[in-house]
Amino acid sequence: MVSDNKPTSFPNSTRVYVPGSRPDLLVPMREVKLADTSRPDGTKSPNEPVRIYDTSGPWGDPAFHGDVEKGLPAIRAAWILERGDVEAVPGRELKPEDDGYLSWKHAETAQRATSRNRLVQFDRADRKVYKAKPGQRPTQLAYAKQGIITPEMEYIAIRENLRLAAQADSTRRHDLTFQHKGESFGAALPKVITPEFVRSEVARGRAIIPANINHPELEPMIIGRNFLVKINTNIGNSAVASSIEEEVEKMRWSIKWGGDTLMDLSTGKNIHQTREWILRNCPVPVGTVPIYQALEKVNGRAEDLTWEIFRDTLIEQAEQGVDYFTIHAGVRLAYIPLTARRVTGIVSRGGSIMAKWCLSHHKENFLYTHWDEICDIMAAYDVSFSIGDGLRPGSIADANDEAQFAELKTQGELTTRAWERGVQVMNEGPGHVPMHMIKENMDKQLEWCHEAPFYTLGPLTTDIAPGYDHITSAIGAAMIGWYGTAMLCYVTPKEHLGLPNKNDVREGVIAYKIAAHAADLAKGHPAAQIRDNALSKARFEFRWPDQFALALDPERAQEYHDETLPQESAKTAHFCSMCGPNFCSMRISDDIRKFADAQGVSEAEALAKGMEEKSKEFREKGGEIYQ
Amino acid sequence: MVSDNKPTSFPNSTRVYVPGSRPDLLVPMREVKLADTSRPDGTKSPNEPVRIYDTSGPWGDPAFHGDVEKGLPAIRAAWILERGDVEAVPGRELKPEDDGYLSWKHAETAQRATSRNRLVQFDRADRKVYKAKPGQRPTQLAYAKQGIITPEMEYIAIRENLRLAAQADSTRRHDLTFQHKGESFGAALPKVITPEFVRSEVARGRAIIPANINHPELEPMIIGRNFLVKINTNIGNSAVASSIEEEVEKMRWSIKWGGDTLMDLSTGKNIHQTREWILRNCPVPVGTVPIYQALEKVNGRAEDLTWEIFRDTLIEQAEQGVDYFTIHAGVRLAYIPLTARRVTGIVSRGGSIMAKWCLSHHKENFLYTHWDEICDIMAAYDVSFSIGDGLRPGSIADANDEAQFAELKTQGELTTRAWERGVQVMNEGPGHVPMHMIKENMDKQLEWCHEAPFYTLGPLTTDIAPGYDHITSAIGAAMIGWYGTAMLCYVTPKEHLGLPNKNDVREGVIAYKIAAHAADLAKGHPAAQIRDNALSKARFEFRWPDQFALALDPERAQEYHDETLPQESAKTAHFCSMCGPNFCSMRISDDIRKFADAQGVSEAEALAKGMEEKSKEFREKGGEIYQ
Repeated sequence: MVSDNKPTSFPNSTRVYVPGSRPDLLVPMREVKLADTSRPDGTKSPNEPVRIYDTSGPWGDPAFHGDVEKGLPAIRAAWILERGDVEAVPGRELKPEDDGYLSWKHAETAQRATSRNRLVQFDRADRKVYKAKPGQRPTQLAYAKQGIITPEMEYIAIRENLRLAAQADSTRRHDLTFQHKGESFGAALPKVITPEFVRSEVARGRAIIPANINHPELEPMIIGRNFLVKINTNIGNSAVASSIEEEVEKMRWSIKWGGDTLMDLSTGKNIHQTREWILRNCPVPVGTVPIYQALEKVNGRAEDLTWEIFRDTLIEQAEQGVDYFTIHAGVRLAYIPLTARRVTGIVSRGGSIMAKWCLSHHKENFLYTHWDEICDIMAAYDVSFSIGDGLRPGSIADANDEAQFAELKTQGELTTRAWERGVQVMNEGPGHVPMHMIKENMDKQLEWCHEAPFYTLGPLTTDIAPGYDHITSAIGAAMIGWYGTAMLCYVTPKEHLGLPNKNDVREGVIAYKIAAHAADLAKGHPAAQIRDNALSKARFEFRWPDQFALALDPERAQEYHDETLPQESAKTAHFCSMCGPNFCSMRISDDIRKFADAQGVSEAEALAKGMEEKSKEFREKGGEIYQ
Repeated sequence: MVSDNKPTSFPNSTRVYVPGSRPDLLVPMREVKLADTSRPDGTKSPNEPVRIYDTSGPWGDPAFHGDVEKGLPAIRAAWILERGDVEAVPGRELKPEDDGYLSWKHAETAQRATSRNRLVQFDRADRKVYKAKPGQRPTQLAYAKQGIITPEMEYIAIRENLRLAAQADSTRRHDLTFQHKGESFGAALPKVITPEFVRSEVARGRAIIPANINHPELEPMIIGRNFLVKINTNIGNSAVASSIEEEVEKMRWSIKWGGDTLMDLSTGKNIHQTREWILRNCPVPVGTVPIYQALEKVNGRAEDLTWEIFRDTLIEQAEQGVDYFTIHAGVRLAYIPLTARRVTGIVSRGGSIMAKWCLSHHKENFLYTHWDEICDIMAAYDVSFSIGDGLRPGSIADANDEAQFAELKTQGELTTRAWERGVQVMNEGPGHVPMHMIKENMDKQLEWCHEAPFYTLGPLTTDIAPGYDHITSAIGAAMIGWYGTAMLCYVTPKEHLGLPNKNDVREGVIAYKIAAHAADLAKGHPAAQIRDNALSKARFEFRWPDQFALALDPERAQEYHDETLPQESAKTAHFCSMCGPNFCSMRISDDIRKFADAQGVSEAEALAKGMEEKSKEFREKGGEIYQ
């Protein structure tokens, strides 16, 4: 299973590593080389390369010859161990029910029955299970509060600063400075992101670094509103089972296109082994909803769930290296009746499971009553919380209702309690929300959850477009990202209709990269506009290959271009297919520049002012004539 | 060429006509029949049908057996003539250059050379050319100012009120009232749109009814921010020529999916005849950019353009029935140098043409200097202005710059002057604009252009996603629609890359229907949410066929559903493919309702309050314990 299917094979791109303060700290980026600008007078000027945030991990490095069966190198292992606060433990014993079997015999029989369900175990011989030493809380939050800048924090500071190449670019004719006019929300971005800034944001709870000590393969990233907006993708083996190989391939596909984190929402059989394969091969944080696996262990009967089964599942997954857990502890018994008159009731799967449990036992949600114990388990492995929003609205009609906001308030309470126990926290958010009600979600979350990062699903801004919900939700996602949401959970075109295939994943990821990037621009992230400017300059100068290479999806861009003008010559032609060779609007602008150069721009501006005066005069006279 | 390819063949839909105050005033709508709700206890309750705004015209009526060669029925003919202010005129003689030929002989030779370029003339034997009687201005604006409610206005009032069916629906369990919380901009919508409201908005200049007296086939519609947000689609025969049949088919395809207006941006040969075929078969307003055809008449040499050629082209197109003209009169000589330091110069084709003319002659834009004459020509046929934004930004870097806003101010001046001459006006807007700078565009347009309707292209909220610009721009379009833009010009996935094919048109239209509808919801249009609520209720009750039928694109929705669960039984199954048959979040909500019903919702709410008290108490205590 050696990988020769390189997920990152983007045109004109090379993998570069930006070194940090220690030899084992190397931050990967994709560097796009650009062609020279050719001026009409025959002179040329170079264009500096553009560096792009790269989520593809070692799989995106052509020099890496990885083997899925061996997993990725444990780049963080030394960082974790040298802190001296964790120790190897025997770890929990694997049980047949972890993969949905009644017994090992049952597992074996099932395995023989179908080759698709084969239960190949990842060989963990070289891997130990780590846990906090007694009394220790080895979390990035705890370090940050103690004033420690971890290698993870330094790594992130380098990663978030994409302007290095652009800063060196002094050859540009046009001023590429971001015009930060108009409204701005939430963000208080520094010009350069320093390791100390990363630390202070984590210490304040305003950002998290999901990084389980048992996931040393992870390339650190940060989720917080004063950083680049991130996107999450979901995969899962549900229903008609995918194979483990397919799951790993889905993961590599998602990080190729730019997924920043990955949630494994598998249900059914082989959950444990699927997750193991994904974790050992995944360079981005992996999240799960542990109640899904717990439910499998009680054969899908929500009322049979117990704290003990859930607790055991938390430890099972924490030991494997899951970086964040969605936990629906905010679905309190008292809030459930508030959903009775909704148009779409409870649409979150986790929310429904807990609601059913609460109603069956007429007891408070056991995730809520055991919150402090959950915190202590998660602190021991540095698993971050993603506090679920089980009562999120499933339709425009239910947006911002009492049930939703009651839960959000409780999310805030749970956030404070988790912080007190050293656990990193983000909060999940809606859902279906019309545009004019989006900002209220962000404002309340910031206030009630004390600025913990918000992580939203969409929101979808209308209910009437099944088949296109990556678009209905990208609108809401871009807006809420601008308002301050730190991470956007992607939605694919299959939302509400079916399971996404490979192309749906690509469509969903790109729609969300667009939303996140649009939000970064609107927030004024210091490095965000570099790529837009480079692409627009390439477009204006008819450097087609550069335009493709800088695109979020170079393959699609080139494919669409080639549909109309397939000839190789068209890629260097000084016209575009919309206007044809005879007349091109962009060509004329060259004449204007010549004109402006000839008379001097300041003179041209003086002319403009003079004309303004005249026109004012004219309007004033005109006013008399026509009234 | 009898049409059996019905553009509107949506599932569970029938064409209905809502009658007005006169027998020849019948407003078409698509009525979607819905299945009954089946409750778990076996009882059923009906769901009222939903009426959908229908742009497909007679082509969408199964009872209509139209013939493209005969054109559509002239439903407005009587309304136009009975006003007594227009008269039949001989009309301008057709010239070979109207279709891009040097002589009739040249046209004939070209026609023989290729069957694709054949110049079949539409048979106008039954059609006269009308023009205002001397001294008359037969425009909807002039009528509105005189206090006259035209049949067009009444038609529109009926068309904009989609709630008729929903109002009659007293059977619903859930309150479907729109929750208008959160921010709202611009819109001051009445609960019911009356003919008098339509008149007053047109009189105020805040809305236009593009409806040339020579386009009697038109089904009236309105563009204004206190009405449903509209979308425009573009077609054109540019570059590798499409045939006339293809152009007509493109038009029918675009109105099938919901295009409210259509711009014919044809260049090259056969422009006149293509337009004739489109107009005679098109039930929605048709717009053009007359300078494109004028440029063809001078063989693509902008510097050879003259006022006389342009004037002749205006009359040619006005006599054919074009409903609105994009005219780039705001590109004044003095503003052109302001674009010299831009990243992407001038990207509007019309703007570039005029810039080139101005620079070549070093003279003021002749469209500006002849504005009053242009107004008088347009008033004589009730052609509306779409004042072009030739200096719109072509990149994020150029957004909201001096050049753009200088032109916008001039658009405002031109608006006032057109109103004074009785001509209806809308203003075109950008372009490429990051999210935080969008509202400034709307605010300035409202102020400087005195609330004339805004008609924007996108805006695109980032430059980095060629191949997905229907999405980058749908984000901006939804936002600016919410802020008050009256019509959104669609963008297809091929933007910047090539010419859209049929599927690209569909993708573009649906993306923009989403943006427009999201804006309608956010503006609080009184009827907009009916469809969302009906679809969400269908979704919650697993009425799959109803969900498909109510979708913007029923075919796509069903196709995606069938990919995962192709069996017919799955369409009535009480589960969805995401969670599988074992566990479904929506199912549990039924239990909750039963629970709430059993103890009474008010009791449940009392419980919730009690819990809130308790939890408050707990948090207060907790605060002491953990601090």
